Amino acid sequence: MEPEKNFKVPGFSASAVSGDIRKKGDGRLDMGLIFCRGDASAAGVFTRNSMAAAPVILCRERLKMGTARAILVNSGNANCMTGQAGMEDARELCREVGRLLEIHEESVLNSSTGVVGVPLPIEDMGAALGPLVRGLSEDGMEPFSRAILTTDTRSKTFAVDLDLSGGPVRVLGVAKGTGMIAPNMATMLAFILTDASVPPGELHGILHGAVEGSFNAVTVDGDTSTNDTVLMLASGMGPALGSERDRLLFRDGVGEVCRALARQLVADGEGAARVVEVLVVGADDNSQAKLAARAVAQSLLVKTALAAADPNWGRIAVAVGYSGAGVHPEDLSLFIGNVAILRGGEPVSGYREEDAVKIMVRDSYTIRISLGSGTGTASILTTDLTEEYVRINSEYRS
Amino acid sequence: MEPEKNFKVPGFSASAVSGDIRKKGDGRLDMGLIFCRGDASAAGVFTRNSMAAAPVILCRERLKMGTARAILVNSGNANCMTGQAGMEDARELCREVGRLLEIHEESVLNSSTGVVGVPLPIEDMGAALGPLVRGLSEDGMEPFSRAILTTDTRSKTFAVDLDLSGGPVRVLGVAKGTGMIAPNMATMLAFILTDASVPPGELHGILHGAVEGSFNAVTVDGDTSTNDTVLMLASGMGPALGSERDRLLFRDGVGEVCRALARQLVADGEGAARVVEVLVVGADDNSQAKLAARAVAQSLLVKTALAAADPNWGRIAVAVGYSGAGVHPEDLSLFIGNVAILRGGEPVSGYREEDAVKIMVRDSYTIRISLGSGTGTASILTTDLTEEYVRINSEYRS
Repeated sequence: MEPEKNFKVPGFSASAVSGDIRKKGDGRLDMGLIFCRGDASAAGVFTRNSMAAAPVILCRERLKMGTARAILVNSGNANCMTGQAGMEDARELCREVGRLLEIHEESVLNSSTGVVGVPLPIEDMGAALGPLVRGLSEDGMEPFSRAILTTDTRSKTFAVDLDLSGGPVRVLGVAKGTGMIAPNMATMLAFILTDASVPPGELHGILHGAVEGSFNAVTVDGDTSTNDTVLMLASGMGPALGSERDRLLFRDGVGEVCRALARQLVADGEGAARVVEVLVVGADDNSQAKLAARAVAQSLLVKTALAAADPNWGRIAVAVGYSGAGVHPEDLSLFIGNVAILRGGEPVSGYREEDAVKIMVRDSYTIRISLGSGTGTASILTTDLTEEYVRINSEYRS
Repeated sequence: MEPEKNFKVPGFSASAVSGDIRKKGDGRLDMGLIFCRGDASAAGVFTRNSMAAAPVILCRERLKMGTARAILVNSGNANCMTGQAGMEDARELCREVGRLLEIHEESVLNSSTGVVGVPLPIEDMGAALGPLVRGLSEDGMEPFSRAILTTDTRSKTFAVDLDLSGGPVRVLGVAKGTGMIAPNMATMLAFILTDASVPPGELHGILHGAVEGSFNAVTVDGDTSTNDTVLMLASGMGPALGSERDRLLFRDGVGEVCRALARQLVADGEGAARVVEVLVVGADDNSQAKLAARAVAQSLLVKTALAAADPNWGRIAVAVGYSGAGVHPEDLSLFIGNVAILRGGEPVSGYREEDAVKIMVRDSYTIRISLGSGTGTASILTTDLTEEYVRINSEYRS
């Protein structure tokens, strides 16, 4: 996939600076700002972790308004488990951004990612806000996409252009994260911008649906961060969704952007060499299918077998078995790529392990599991688990 | 802990032979037999995995009788996902053991552990049954404890001698397993023998209680095998539980044997260097506490931090946060050993990371988490996650 080159979305400008949040003096970009020149419809989806970080709590409050003007993001510090002082820091930064931009402070949203339990370096960050606001430009989303990274090895970006009945609109997405949770909760963040005119309630529904089929359908290590955030702003500078066809087109476009970003997240998973889709069909319903898919996608024994390209299919069947999904062993079928291994609970005669290995050495393939009882389906992207993952996560602070 | 030297329990004999189930011709013991010279009260606890292996299905049926005379066990092949043929193989082996021992075939129980999805080498195994029966001796539980091993590096055994009002009784336990699930579902198996006179119903209750606080309170990789089995036989050659004190004594004795075996399992976990107790207190109830303890004990990010002796406590708090247990961040307290890190949701002033590191380099310690809202508690033993674990589980069949 080629890196996105066009970061312009009508109505938006962005910028990035180094606030030296990691105290390394290396000039690394770690603060980013998105600004909309009018009121944007705003929607968000957040972590379900009870220990939600301060900026998540702040965004949840402010999104009740349905509109926003700006998003301030920093990497290097999650502003999580920082007590009441952390809440006040988040508000203070937004207040200052509001003052500099001459907009209401309540219309500034905030996201943070990085180390947990350490107070924000609020004075250094405050001093960086002036340059951040002065740097705003319509090409600024590219440096912004770099400022939000932690252990990521590359930016995650994707855009689609859609022909609505009222004219063209754009949906641009920028994300970071190397797992549903990265070392020290470095978190998954995504920011989706569009110029389409969409009322806040409808935007909220579309974003929720898109997140369910994308960011909520990937796993690297099964952990859920305290800071996970997907924010979407619609500037309204472009046409409205004027017809049912427009609505479908737009919904699919947002879904495509989210899925592309989610796949980029998984592919950049720590120490991961492969992206594997676990597809479950034939479950009693979709939520049963999801239970089974998630159990397989998160099993350490499955993930280590993926790393070794070892068609140790018993591990897959066993994970389905303990998933909590309704399963009858005699109805279970299993395929790796197009290679049939198990049909109706019985090993397929003529199955040759080397055929499965040929699939499993690929960078990307699908494991298909049929429970043989209903029409429920689910798909989850996962990665292999390598010694590299353990090394990264053991040595992160040593 | 010294290896157990006395394997005698009145009423029981045992033996072990090599059936060459792994086809390596190395003479490794891989078939074991336990025999009771009269009808023993029998109880069992089994995996909740829907893909239960053939011997598990067979044991569940036969335990409805409440008594048994023999247990046939093999390592090297789990007899799981082997279809109807696998069920018939298990029955056939038990039928032959019954014939050789001149007991009813329905009184023979069966356990298997090893590779999944491969038919039992039933002819070779059948041929080994004669020597297995002829080899029965009252010292046979020691070789039996070796015959059931797979990737285990050592036998797991423990015994207690109890003074009941009617005289002394013994409870001996033998187990295998290097995780709740080991490579290729090598499984957790445990066999508990006693000479006490205990009716089947009461034995069942006591065993269930003991398993809940021991084998069900450990985790290595969070996977649940298809073959997990705990079987207990009481020969009735010794005294009955004649008083309430006897009952308590016996229950505690069985609990102690199960806990000791469970701890030996965890300590032998694949690639594990440390055994860490995750103790949760102050939850709304015990099941909420268990949710929180299990999330922490199974988190890859926590387990990799344990491997590095890194007091990266944010990872612990975050796992509690996504556990599904009722948690209020402002009530959370956290200790590593006796080192206080978080109290009432706020970092403890004066906490020094090097103090926590001093605890975390130990072979064994406790992480204590207080949710600060109720009286629910739970304790789960876990291990660190090392590169060695990934290596073992990636390379297992390559």
